[in-house]
Amino acid sequence: MLSKNRIKFIRSLNINKFRYDNKAFVVEGFKSIHELMHSNLTIEMLYLTVEANEIFRTARSGLKTEIITGKAMKQISQMPTPPGILAIVAMPDTSIDPATLRGQLSLVLDGISDPGNLGTIIRTADWFGIRNIICSEDTVDPFHPKVVQSTMGSLFRVQITNTSLDTFLSKSSSFGLAIYGAVLDGQSIYQENLQTSSSLIVIGSESHGIRPAVLPFIERPLTIPLPTTKTTSGNPESLNASIAAAIIMAEFRRPV
Amino acid sequence: MLSKNRIKFIRSLNINKFRYDNKAFVVEGFKSIHELMHSNLTIEMLYLTVEANEIFRTARSGLKTEIITGKAMKQISQMPTPPGILAIVAMPDTSIDPATLRGQLSLVLDGISDPGNLGTIIRTADWFGIRNIICSEDTVDPFHPKVVQSTMGSLFRVQITNTSLDTFLSKSSSFGLAIYGAVLDGQSIYQENLQTSSSLIVIGSESHGIRPAVLPFIERPLTIPLPTTKTTSGNPESLNASIAAAIIMAEFRRPV
Repeated sequence: MLSKNRIKFIRSLNINKFRYDNKAFVVEGFKSIHELMHSNLTIEMLYLTVEANEIFRTARSGLKTEIITGKAMKQISQMPTPPGILAIVAMPDTSIDPATLRGQLSLVLDGISDPGNLGTIIRTADWFGIRNIICSEDTVDPFHPKVVQSTMGSLFRVQITNTSLDTFLSKSSSFGLAIYGAVLDGQSIYQENLQTSSSLIVIGSESHGIRPAVLPFIERPLTIPLPTTKTTSGNPESLNASIAAAIIMAEFRRPV
Repeated sequence: MLSKNRIKFIRSLNINKFRYDNKAFVVEGFKSIHELMHSNLTIEMLYLTVEANEIFRTARSGLKTEIITGKAMKQISQMPTPPGILAIVAMPDTSIDPATLRGQLSLVLDGISDPGNLGTIIRTADWFGIRNIICSEDTVDPFHPKVVQSTMGSLFRVQITNTSLDTFLSKSSSFGLAIYGAVLDGQSIYQENLQTSSSLIVIGSESHGIRPAVLPFIERPLTIPLPTTKTTSGNPESLNASIAAAIIMAEFRRPV
């Protein structure tokens, strides 16, 4: 049976501070936990309802598990309709050395605040084979329950770091990484030479774009141009941050 | 002063049935209402708090307005923090004749259920100069408050229709429109000939893709390929529906 203290502990992982104090986060749902088991992350404890255990029994060999009641699951779940399967996962090492990014294409996020947007960006980056995402300190936490949920398992395949972008980008430059960034008045992504190796793509926040303190690091400003065929008078001011990131990643990965 | 009946009427526009019975929907916020005033849609009534009126006074000439208290605004607003400006807008004609789509690139949505996804798709379509979106009857209503909000004004520049896709697509074919569709095992978007004129792009739902009854209409199945450079073992199963739609639209509009 789950003790009151244990319930309190699991619920506290809803909150950023407690996740980092305890170096643990919560994952729920069959698909996500299936992906988790095929990743390098460590499941500290798996909670299952009796019903979920029937479905998952063969898959969970070697894992520390506890079968709990539906009522107890409701108490620890972060979802309105608990799927009946919940894992406590050890937070992976999130430090990053820019030198390890040489030869790779990586993503840098400056102040993305919507958990759904961050989740979608992580999922899209995973699709495009991007292995590292570096987030500014004010970007929403990648282990926030809503982010974990919306990455659909991609969170376990991409390494994510929260760090000071100024420090990180000034080091990156000295390691020979090319720094691209999405802005409103840059070079067209269809004209700029997109170097897919040893490159960083910086994406700014939903409402303010890349912040002024980060802009000086952008050596190669990029813009998604409005199509020339466009005839309408009014135009949207910008694209959603996750959409802009996706179109830029797709263009970097486009076969020649 | 707002009567109880009037408050009840405005609040009822939260609900699909009442929006269509009354052929009206609600728009809130300075930016959205600014965009609205530059569109062809008709504002039936504009409600402003005293504070919002100070800001908006010069812009609103010719509009039927009513200045209300912050408390009254809270009663009619659909947002947790009301921006203080709310318009009742006449619902535009949403019928569509496939013949008018000749010469154009249009979007067809089959069962998109998340308001945020639909809003993002409308905003992206507007960016790429797509003037018509045809939605299946079970797609979330485009005049749903959350969709209106997330389109950031693009809803007023794109004509959206909810209709039976079977009927619509069988007519479209006879009007010479080429029907593309996003599937998991189609031709690569980088290899297929993407005809930007007289074409429809069908995007399926977040969880089930294009439904079986609609699949037979897809003459040119399209897929966003995983990059060949991808070396990781695990892969995400798919992209988010709004991301897939964006990458495909960008490729259609890509300058040669």
